Amino acid sequence: MKIICTRQNLIQGVSTAQRAVSAKNPLPVLSGILLTARDNRLELQATDLEMGIQCIIPCNVQEEGSIVLPAKYLGEIVRRLPDAPIQIETTQSTNAVISYGQSEITINGFQAEEFPSFPNPQGKNSLALPEEELKEYLRQILFATSPDENRPVFTGVLMEIFDGQIRFVATDTHRLALRDVKTTAEVSDINVIIPGKTLNELARVIGAADKEVTISLGDKQVIFGMEDTLLISRLIEGQFPNYRQVIPQGYKTRVRVKTKDILEAVERASLLARVGTQIIRLNIEEEKIVISANTEVGKIHEEVPVYLQGEPMQIAFNALYLIDALRANGSENIYLDMSGPLSPGILRPVGGEDYLSLVLPVRTI
Amino acid sequence: MKIICTRQNLIQGVSTAQRAVSAKNPLPVLSGILLTARDNRLELQATDLEMGIQCIIPCNVQEEGSIVLPAKYLGEIVRRLPDAPIQIETTQSTNAVISYGQSEITINGFQAEEFPSFPNPQGKNSLALPEEELKEYLRQILFATSPDENRPVFTGVLMEIFDGQIRFVATDTHRLALRDVKTTAEVSDINVIIPGKTLNELARVIGAADKEVTISLGDKQVIFGMEDTLLISRLIEGQFPNYRQVIPQGYKTRVRVKTKDILEAVERASLLARVGTQIIRLNIEEEKIVISANTEVGKIHEEVPVYLQGEPMQIAFNALYLIDALRANGSENIYLDMSGPLSPGILRPVGGEDYLSLVLPVRTI
Repeated sequence: MKIICTRQNLIQGVSTAQRAVSAKNPLPVLSGILLTARDNRLELQATDLEMGIQCIIPCNVQEEGSIVLPAKYLGEIVRRLPDAPIQIETTQSTNAVISYGQSEITINGFQAEEFPSFPNPQGKNSLALPEEELKEYLRQILFATSPDENRPVFTGVLMEIFDGQIRFVATDTHRLALRDVKTTAEVSDINVIIPGKTLNELARVIGAADKEVTISLGDKQVIFGMEDTLLISRLIEGQFPNYRQVIPQGYKTRVRVKTKDILEAVERASLLARVGTQIIRLNIEEEKIVISANTEVGKIHEEVPVYLQGEPMQIAFNALYLIDALRANGSENIYLDMSGPLSPGILRPVGGEDYLSLVLPVRTI
Repeated sequence: MKIICTRQNLIQGVSTAQRAVSAKNPLPVLSGILLTARDNRLELQATDLEMGIQCIIPCNVQEEGSIVLPAKYLGEIVRRLPDAPIQIETTQSTNAVISYGQSEITINGFQAEEFPSFPNPQGKNSLALPEEELKEYLRQILFATSPDENRPVFTGVLMEIFDGQIRFVATDTHRLALRDVKTTAEVSDINVIIPGKTLNELARVIGAADKEVTISLGDKQVIFGMEDTLLISRLIEGQFPNYRQVIPQGYKTRVRVKTKDILEAVERASLLARVGTQIIRLNIEEEKIVISANTEVGKIHEEVPVYLQGEPMQIAFNALYLIDALRANGSENIYLDMSGPLSPGILRPVGGEDYLSLVLPVRTI
């Protein structure tokens, strides 16, 4: 293999592929990126066997071929190269020589044959979403996933397609987020769980204003296709909990409040609450919410103006869960709907029917 | 005590004073900031008993008095306050109520009497330096101090005044930095060691374009006076090593090289060298330096164009020490002077006689 490419393209390709490399890989070859030169382009592939990223950059291929180079060193080196044409040439052993100007770096790698073959992308159902919008949906949903690998379904995001719409749902059993998205794509009804880790990586890669992501769903895998990048991931097996029965249909108390006002007040209360259990109390009155916390550090009393519909109420939440939900909302004003001190609070954007998040209250004496 | 002040002033005062609070203070009261309201201003003081910071902010004093409040909570809270007038009022116990708008936070503190009295600033010798310049001198010197508290003199910076000039010197025995500064101040000859930690904090606080720092030296302490801030520190006792005998007077080999070119080459070499001992080799030839490193990860061969005076030479350095010295230099071109493979290399800015740094070579086979 012998190629010449620009520093900028190489940085972009290596940085993207590197995201699929796990620090705790049991196979040494998986700490590397597979470089394949053919058809005047360079393919970069990396995988941790659960998720794989393939990225293509333009280059001048002088000799086709492939090699695996250690992702960490390759990444650090390309970022420090001068802004000159970069040549990468493999030697007879498993080395590659990276040349630039009068200088060169020889880096030890692995044979391409040692690299596991990339799962063959075969999606039966396929639909496209604008990158910018999908990135925002993911931001609104991913905070509610669980980091606990012992219960895999809660680490993922449910993606349902039914009645011509897509629904994303995540829950860690303490809070839940749900986002509906209209689609005109003709796809059959679907119900899959996509790993949160995959979607977090997707959210980092996408975001361009005028581009679309193609989502292709197979039986056991999902493929996200961007302009020069493919992200392939296994699906999570198992049954997602019946989220519908958790979401109360009505409310006894509804407050309308400025998101920024209540968020800042809860953040301040959280500073004092954190030495304890992060419990803050909301006393919902006619024209205001009084937010309070009381710990050995001190106590706080915050008043936030609201519009109340329904009954006054007292309820307690974990401040951190409320902060996550308020930040994810993204709307200037929200409704906070409650049905009682032991029923979940529901946050909805004012003027938006397609999104909600839910936070379980904390039982206090 | 009862005061009203702006959020911005309070943030600035607390952030500055907080820098003197050590995380590992044995006395609980030292985790706090002493607030003293008098003469229509608020004094904020903090100390770890080695270094103290006093900061003054304007405020409306409605009732004079003082209290100690925990620095960490106070800092986090004031940064999150709304941009409204802030009132701080002490209660009969050791609490303070911070009020803003309709909300308030009560924070538990300590009695002002528990706080150690601040060392009385009494400097015999006093001189002033422009903030911007002193900040740059410190940047050029501080990298050469040692973090090893077992040998206190090496953790400090020698400040000498003789023949109408100031000299700053630091060394950790592997490298050394020396900066001469002209002064017109009439001060007697002086030889003190100022803690590197103090000077690091000073460097963070200063930097304004048209302001001066006053340096006052007592027998056991130094006081840096800025516009609204005083930084007081003990001096380090002990004998600074005789640095003069370490600095070679002539050279056998002098290369003139672009700082950026050699720095980037050494940084790349360091990426490959670091799994080993960070040893890189410099092969100084007629028109270039060849920089090389060879480890199990791979090998690097960098060529940097230079102007050579004197003999070609081979020498090896610790890449990290060379990087620190090159970054500190701050000049577009440097001279690297050497007297042999086992003698220190000296870096001097081209066109500057007032600064040098020195790096010991590494003995290789």
